[in-house]
Amino acid sequence: MNHPTSSDSSLASTAEVDQVLERLLEDRQIEAIERLIEETSPADLARAISRLDEASRGQIVDLVGAESAADLVQQIPHVQAVQLLGEAQPDHAAAVVDELPSDLQTDLISDLQSDDAADVLSHMQPSEAADVQQLSQYDRLQAGGLMATELLRYPMSWTIEQVVEDLRGGADKYRDYEIQYAYVVDDQDRLQGVLRLRDLLLGDRQRNLRDIMIGNPLSVDVAVKLEELHGLLQEHSFLGIPVTDTAGRLLGVVQRRDVDEAWIEQQDKSFLRRQGIVSGEEIRSLPLWQRSRGRLLWLSLNIVLNLLAAAIISHFESTLAAAIALTAFLPIISDMSGCSGNQAVAVSIRELMLGLVKPGDVGRVWLKEISVGLMNGAAVGILLGVIAWVWKGNLILGAVIGVALTLNTIVAVSIGGVIPLLLRGMGRDPAVASGPLLTTVTDMCGFFLVLSLASSLIEYL
Amino acid sequence: MNHPTSSDSSLASTAEVDQVLERLLEDRQIEAIERLIEETSPADLARAISRLDEASRGQIVDLVGAESAADLVQQIPHVQAVQLLGEAQPDHAAAVVDELPSDLQTDLISDLQSDDAADVLSHMQPSEAADVQQLSQYDRLQAGGLMATELLRYPMSWTIEQVVEDLRGGADKYRDYEIQYAYVVDDQDRLQGVLRLRDLLLGDRQRNLRDIMIGNPLSVDVAVKLEELHGLLQEHSFLGIPVTDTAGRLLGVVQRRDVDEAWIEQQDKSFLRRQGIVSGEEIRSLPLWQRSRGRLLWLSLNIVLNLLAAAIISHFESTLAAAIALTAFLPIISDMSGCSGNQAVAVSIRELMLGLVKPGDVGRVWLKEISVGLMNGAAVGILLGVIAWVWKGNLILGAVIGVALTLNTIVAVSIGGVIPLLLRGMGRDPAVASGPLLTTVTDMCGFFLVLSLASSLIEYL
Repeated sequence: MNHPTSSDSSLASTAEVDQVLERLLEDRQIEAIERLIEETSPADLARAISRLDEASRGQIVDLVGAESAADLVQQIPHVQAVQLLGEAQPDHAAAVVDELPSDLQTDLISDLQSDDAADVLSHMQPSEAADVQQLSQYDRLQAGGLMATELLRYPMSWTIEQVVEDLRGGADKYRDYEIQYAYVVDDQDRLQGVLRLRDLLLGDRQRNLRDIMIGNPLSVDVAVKLEELHGLLQEHSFLGIPVTDTAGRLLGVVQRRDVDEAWIEQQDKSFLRRQGIVSGEEIRSLPLWQRSRGRLLWLSLNIVLNLLAAAIISHFESTLAAAIALTAFLPIISDMSGCSGNQAVAVSIRELMLGLVKPGDVGRVWLKEISVGLMNGAAVGILLGVIAWVWKGNLILGAVIGVALTLNTIVAVSIGGVIPLLLRGMGRDPAVASGPLLTTVTDMCGFFLVLSLASSLIEYL
Repeated sequence: MNHPTSSDSSLASTAEVDQVLERLLEDRQIEAIERLIEETSPADLARAISRLDEASRGQIVDLVGAESAADLVQQIPHVQAVQLLGEAQPDHAAAVVDELPSDLQTDLISDLQSDDAADVLSHMQPSEAADVQQLSQYDRLQAGGLMATELLRYPMSWTIEQVVEDLRGGADKYRDYEIQYAYVVDDQDRLQGVLRLRDLLLGDRQRNLRDIMIGNPLSVDVAVKLEELHGLLQEHSFLGIPVTDTAGRLLGVVQRRDVDEAWIEQQDKSFLRRQGIVSGEEIRSLPLWQRSRGRLLWLSLNIVLNLLAAAIISHFESTLAAAIALTAFLPIISDMSGCSGNQAVAVSIRELMLGLVKPGDVGRVWLKEISVGLMNGAAVGILLGVIAWVWKGNLILGAVIGVALTLNTIVAVSIGGVIPLLLRGMGRDPAVASGPLLTTVTDMCGFFLVLSLASSLIEYL
């Protein structure tokens, strides 16, 4: 296929995938469902599943074979996979999880409700369940939680010939492994070197691994965090990094792909949190109460923050009553300052992500922001001031609005530029808390500037 | 090294990298600079360079050897690499670009100012420059712009033995290739199959490639877009996808890594745009006027949007004058509705990205949002209404605020949920335009609801 598209499944070409899937589930056409899973693109599958009702969704895992269901679970988004397994019979869910690589097993089990998780674990094959128990001691966002234990491991004394024989003999077992490297260990199972397939291919078959391996390879401790792994993989072009315990024993391998996936998932969560989905997770097929709760948490906090700024307006009610034309400009001051501040927040978050600034660079960032703040503050201040003057026919009113917006823009970019660095310095996610902090302060400050300026010039307004 | 960290460079351990780099540049200690580049982590390098002034930055590429500079350029963020090359002498910049893989060459040249780009091209080796000319006909976000032309290509009639001999002989040339697969072509150079290194390793050395290759491999046309490539690589676990022209001739290979990088860069740009950096690019080492302009564009548009909402407030000035206590609540209504709407926008953007919804799902998404809007609107409406009642001691005022917020929350989530789908349907980036459209409409609607309710009940306020 030369131009593969998401709609090249033969089954899906006649009708929407979700309608096909729903009909097949009703008719319990197991083989056809399995074929659909195999032939449909992950996006179409995910979309079709999100359109089913809960009862039909639960059936999928219960009906189709474990291998096919495992294939499905690996293709759809994580949150959906968790939902699917949670709604299935525990023994069927367990059979599916048995088929998955160890890191994914652990991810899924740890995100199930705790009694569902225990149910599924109790139905899994004992050795697989033990693997999960073992891995679930690590955080999902650590090397231990991200690594797969399936890897090629050979003693230093072996020859290339022996490795090739082993690979040939184990073709079945290795088929699903992501083999980029083979790892060489000593008799204590401590990592000593790494072999690229290329070295095995080009080397003399009689040579010992000890002589052709790349010694003293890069490895990470099982406790290393996702952020550091991501940094290492940006720095080096390796496809995977071996993971060791504190004694240097080889435990597993983190694949670049899994790190990237976890990284993107983190970014996604942080995006949702930043936009006020406090739980960091919502898809619309989740139950209504769960969606509503995840959003309400932030909305109620936001009311409190907003009341702080409202208190300032309320304090100046007599000024406003005397110069009612000002009221139309209060939301503009609030919104414009929020925008300027958010621009600075965005650049700081980006520079933090790229490693261009560190929490200690607060002073430097502040100077850079003040210069932009002066320019842009003056520009928007003059613009809005002139508009206010012309619209309301009052020069002083225009001046009050213009000066207040200029000053508040400088305040906003200062806070916006600096706050992400301070939050990062305190070990918090700057993406989430920067916005609310920024707008609360700039609203309060902006309303105060406009209204105190206005009240001191009230006889001219 | 077991616990690699970003500070494990011996040179950087005594002083900040940027101070060391600055001193070395002043003293023109070329070898020490090259060592610093080799030993320092990409993040520390990027940060150090962003702290240099323009003159010192320009010197780096001019001073150090082309290979070392090429190493540097590959490690730092793209925008910084462009800046570095633009500030160097064209002949030095050209020597550096000569050392880079073809896809990166093209990316960098195409992002230089056009006369800088022509200068650099004219100093490059003719064959490399021709490659760039050839590749630069493709958009950066197409397979043609993302592919590297460096790949392993063998005729079907060759044996494994011949391939292994070629790999041994070309070890030097192939060292920098990212070799995951070898591609098999017919005598017209049309792609016929793909070989994994594993197949070469395990296969009988006398066999023809024709017999062991995976035939009819997945390939993409040179015009395929980044989005589709990203989708394909999520669907399949391949490390790279071969790229062909319309006649099926093998042109290059897109590596998973390059697709992921371009994808993340796109997300970054979209993040900056969403936060009002219209150019999609700002780091603080760019010139002030460029940073200011990129932000002002959006700020000035925002003033216009805000004036629409302000006009509504202005229209109801007499109502406000009669019930001045209302003014404190206008910014709250605006902000709270914006928040509710943004939550819905975020979930829609996420679901679009995961493929869970398509532009055609507008009706379905709307229904899902209305149910959340009813629950959360009632909750925040009652909360704020009661606060207003207690604070201002007027039940009717509380009722006006509460009812308006409830209704406007429903409006906000409806618009917020639906707008990203509509924008995507129109082929626009939903992440960028959704926010401004949403807040403009919800502000106007919110102010109108509060103020028209208030004016009809004005005798009780």
